[in-house]
Amino acid sequence: MKLNTFMKSMIVGGIAVAVVSSTTLVGAAQNPKKEVIPAKATSKNLIVLIGDGMGAAQVSAARYYQQYTKGISHLNIDPYYVGQATTYADRGEDGGKIVSGIVTDSASAGTAFATGHKTYNAGISVSNEDVSKPFASIIEAAEVNGKATGLVTTARITHATPAVYASHVRSRDNESAIASQYLDSGVDVLLGGGKQFFVTKEEKGKRTDKNILADFQAKGYTLVENTASLNALPSQTTKVLGLFGNSHVAYVPDRTAEIPSLAAMTSKALNILSTDKDGFVMMIEGGRIDHSGHANDLPTLVQEVLDFDAAFKTAIEYAKKDGNTSVVVTADHETGGLSLSRDNIYEINIDLWDKQKHSSESLAAALEAAKTPEEIRSIVTANTWITDLSDEEVKQIMAGDGSSYKREGAYNAVISKRLLVGWSGHGHSAVDVGVWAYGPIADKIKGQIDNTQIATVGASIIGVDLAKSSKELQSKYLFPKFKVNRENVVLYPAEALVTALGGTFKGDTSAVNLLVGKNTVTVNLTAQTAAFNGAAASYTVDIDNGKLYLPLVAFSQLTGKTLLWDALSERIILR
Amino acid sequence: MKLNTFMKSMIVGGIAVAVVSSTTLVGAAQNPKKEVIPAKATSKNLIVLIGDGMGAAQVSAARYYQQYTKGISHLNIDPYYVGQATTYADRGEDGGKIVSGIVTDSASAGTAFATGHKTYNAGISVSNEDVSKPFASIIEAAEVNGKATGLVTTARITHATPAVYASHVRSRDNESAIASQYLDSGVDVLLGGGKQFFVTKEEKGKRTDKNILADFQAKGYTLVENTASLNALPSQTTKVLGLFGNSHVAYVPDRTAEIPSLAAMTSKALNILSTDKDGFVMMIEGGRIDHSGHANDLPTLVQEVLDFDAAFKTAIEYAKKDGNTSVVVTADHETGGLSLSRDNIYEINIDLWDKQKHSSESLAAALEAAKTPEEIRSIVTANTWITDLSDEEVKQIMAGDGSSYKREGAYNAVISKRLLVGWSGHGHSAVDVGVWAYGPIADKIKGQIDNTQIATVGASIIGVDLAKSSKELQSKYLFPKFKVNRENVVLYPAEALVTALGGTFKGDTSAVNLLVGKNTVTVNLTAQTAAFNGAAASYTVDIDNGKLYLPLVAFSQLTGKTLLWDALSERIILR
Repeated sequence: MKLNTFMKSMIVGGIAVAVVSSTTLVGAAQNPKKEVIPAKATSKNLIVLIGDGMGAAQVSAARYYQQYTKGISHLNIDPYYVGQATTYADRGEDGGKIVSGIVTDSASAGTAFATGHKTYNAGISVSNEDVSKPFASIIEAAEVNGKATGLVTTARITHATPAVYASHVRSRDNESAIASQYLDSGVDVLLGGGKQFFVTKEEKGKRTDKNILADFQAKGYTLVENTASLNALPSQTTKVLGLFGNSHVAYVPDRTAEIPSLAAMTSKALNILSTDKDGFVMMIEGGRIDHSGHANDLPTLVQEVLDFDAAFKTAIEYAKKDGNTSVVVTADHETGGLSLSRDNIYEINIDLWDKQKHSSESLAAALEAAKTPEEIRSIVTANTWITDLSDEEVKQIMAGDGSSYKREGAYNAVISKRLLVGWSGHGHSAVDVGVWAYGPIADKIKGQIDNTQIATVGASIIGVDLAKSSKELQSKYLFPKFKVNRENVVLYPAEALVTALGGTFKGDTSAVNLLVGKNTVTVNLTAQTAAFNGAAASYTVDIDNGKLYLPLVAFSQLTGKTLLWDALSERIILR
Repeated sequence: MKLNTFMKSMIVGGIAVAVVSSTTLVGAAQNPKKEVIPAKATSKNLIVLIGDGMGAAQVSAARYYQQYTKGISHLNIDPYYVGQATTYADRGEDGGKIVSGIVTDSASAGTAFATGHKTYNAGISVSNEDVSKPFASIIEAAEVNGKATGLVTTARITHATPAVYASHVRSRDNESAIASQYLDSGVDVLLGGGKQFFVTKEEKGKRTDKNILADFQAKGYTLVENTASLNALPSQTTKVLGLFGNSHVAYVPDRTAEIPSLAAMTSKALNILSTDKDGFVMMIEGGRIDHSGHANDLPTLVQEVLDFDAAFKTAIEYAKKDGNTSVVVTADHETGGLSLSRDNIYEINIDLWDKQKHSSESLAAALEAAKTPEEIRSIVTANTWITDLSDEEVKQIMAGDGSSYKREGAYNAVISKRLLVGWSGHGHSAVDVGVWAYGPIADKIKGQIDNTQIATVGASIIGVDLAKSSKELQSKYLFPKFKVNRENVVLYPAEALVTALGGTFKGDTSAVNLLVGKNTVTVNLTAQTAAFNGAAASYTVDIDNGKLYLPLVAFSQLTGKTLLWDALSERIILR
């Protein structure tokens, strides 16, 4: 789409969706221009629960499934429904490719509800600029107030949703940097999967530098890797790093007793965090609702939603007992374009939803390896109720679905057709997501809101200052686009960086001046030579697609400071 | 699905979804078993707006479309969002075919939000039984209190959603009966399409009996059929029948100035109804959001949602000025399984959404008639931005989509792929729908509700008694399943009917007794003979699939009353 035009129209409109009805009462006269006014803290603690990929259809599906299988007609979250949120991303690119528009990813949506700022898809709590600024999350702001903090997820702990709360990187894929940033984040409780980003390639990990688990231990973190060691944590524990999987935590239907449920992780995290006299902020993510949605694996998805709903129960019971805790639940986006019905049939075959034994993910390798129709039949029959797989269905599975999910995707297409549910693909969709809340926060985020209000209202409820923490972070770090030349020199976009450093960039096609205070760097674009305050400087001068790039030394000299390049986090350290 | 098991589980669970959080405040301790307590009326007037087929994705789509095309970032309904509603239908059948389960149609959902009772798909405000009882709607109950009433829609006025408010039939397809029942309904303002069910086949109508327009005029209704005559209605008008189309009112992109918008109809209806000193109840339906959803015609759908949203604006402005009006907005269900994204692409091509000139419906006949690829290309190019229709796309359109939408369906599939939106078929889906509200009703229906609460809470807000009106109706009418034998005798299921009449049915495989008070009908099943109080009776005795059927005379004699068969409405008149 023409994103520029869309974004311009938002400015012309003059009213951001973000502020519609944020502080208004339903039924009263409404002024959509009202801003959230920072208020006196009205809750000591805040628990944010994120159902990753949990659109309205996912919630309805889980409710009907639970009704059918257990005779329980409502989810734990149901009585706390207060509204819905828009989720649109900022226009943005990742590596030169447009990746954002109306359909958000978890990084952009997470940045919105963790920091109160929109960004591009893939951006982890940084602004949408060539030289991005970090935005502080509500967890980082809460650290300043001395609150205990925690991140709990069934995804990798370094995945986008937890990452936005305690790290800053231009690309969500940089999970090694996210893990390293956690070390300095001050977050007390980190529970999830993702051990691979804490250990080296030699240890089945992904890190190229070193194992950082010892660093966490040195900082006082107790390491746990299974249910038994989680349960055995002594009551006086204040810092814990729990890694219950090399990658994501196993799906509910694939879990062994070794792997704690999200509710069990939540319960332990609450035990630890609630001992802090200053209160706490924690985020709990049902991270694999999204993954099963991407795969189009509905039987697994409904179990993941119920796993999340059980974690909510643990959280809400704590909050009610505590009396000083606000709880808010939302999703980052819908995943899969799930539809509860298909093919013009007014029914869903819900009696089949509990007949799949393990996730489709657990079959993927076997499906890919299968050489014959008989092997496919045998795999499908062993995992499902299906004993009458048609030749056409076998053929469909063997052909794959044309996506990266290949035969697993086709298997789920076959299953979904029999379950009478539909999907529009393997990606996210732009439909609004639900918001549920309890405690003082509930009245402030009801109705139609934007996901940024989850952060801004949350901060006002617990009395922490997002803007102040962002300012502090921005005085320390910048996150530039950069390039590395053949000589391994890291080069930065000169105009964007000098501007971000408070300087100016002037010039024409033959020469430019970069000015910061009294210092000037002059670049002769034709000769590709540079000078600092008139004296020749040996900076690498690179012009790429009409843009000037210079090495960090030029900017250090300009600012009179020693700017450092943190290659792991791909950030400039300003002080 | 195994519906029996599902429904049993609902009883085992002991808690109907319907009553979850109905009267609870978010943030307070919640008791899901609380019932809606009838309260003193707190609004004189009630306006119910139904976006037929308007799921969350349809709302998000319209908001983003309006943002893109007009720079307006929020819909008129947005500031009034209060919650969402479950929509599941009662288990049910229509003509022996299972038609209901979790996925509702407009008749079943309409019955729920108009009367407070679940029923089967196709049932128009009647119970889900072999001999159905009528349920009174909030409009019928309001008539008792002397309130003025109105039904306004862009669908046929005899279509399911308006029908549930002022008629009772076993099958929504019986639109001639619905039109006739309106005549006695007392509804003051009827505006929509559907002239065909008021006039005979000779007049391009569908009625086999007679033109009933004169009957409406005799009852004081002014007939209008276009914008000019609607506008010209004198200010003292109290009853109006507006029919702006033989079938449905034209889609927004196909409308001429002759056809009023939903907002124009709403405005006129409010002018008329608001003169009643006892107050009024009206239902306003955006009826064609659903139709464009069924067809998978997104460009038309977003315009229909905005037409509905404009009607809401008219209603809310009235309500705010009036100060004694509650407004509630919901949908009956989602239609089409719409997804805002598809094929794993994180964008929607919203810049193309306003480039289609007319609805796909307007092209259907031409597409079907086209003989060559060139003709298809010419039709598509004339109606869209597409000048580069590929051979594959042409082939796809010519082949049809395998549904009853044929080439129109395939055309929409081609368009939707280019717009980057997905559909799961041409039917409804079971995802929860939004609820928006203003005035005293808003606090009573917030959060997660069931659609039946729209009726029950609405009734309590305006102080009308649904149960009393239902009882009154049930003393007048029964709606039995029936069969007509070769001799044109209408026969009724004996056990179900005698039970519905308050009698009993006893017997075995050879003989049965039907008892009402002191009267007995004995049927010899082997000889297929009958007796009334011991004397031979000449009733037709019919046994069909093990079920005994008898003619109405048997039941008249049993009850000692002259029961009448209303063949048009397929109902027994009890008195």
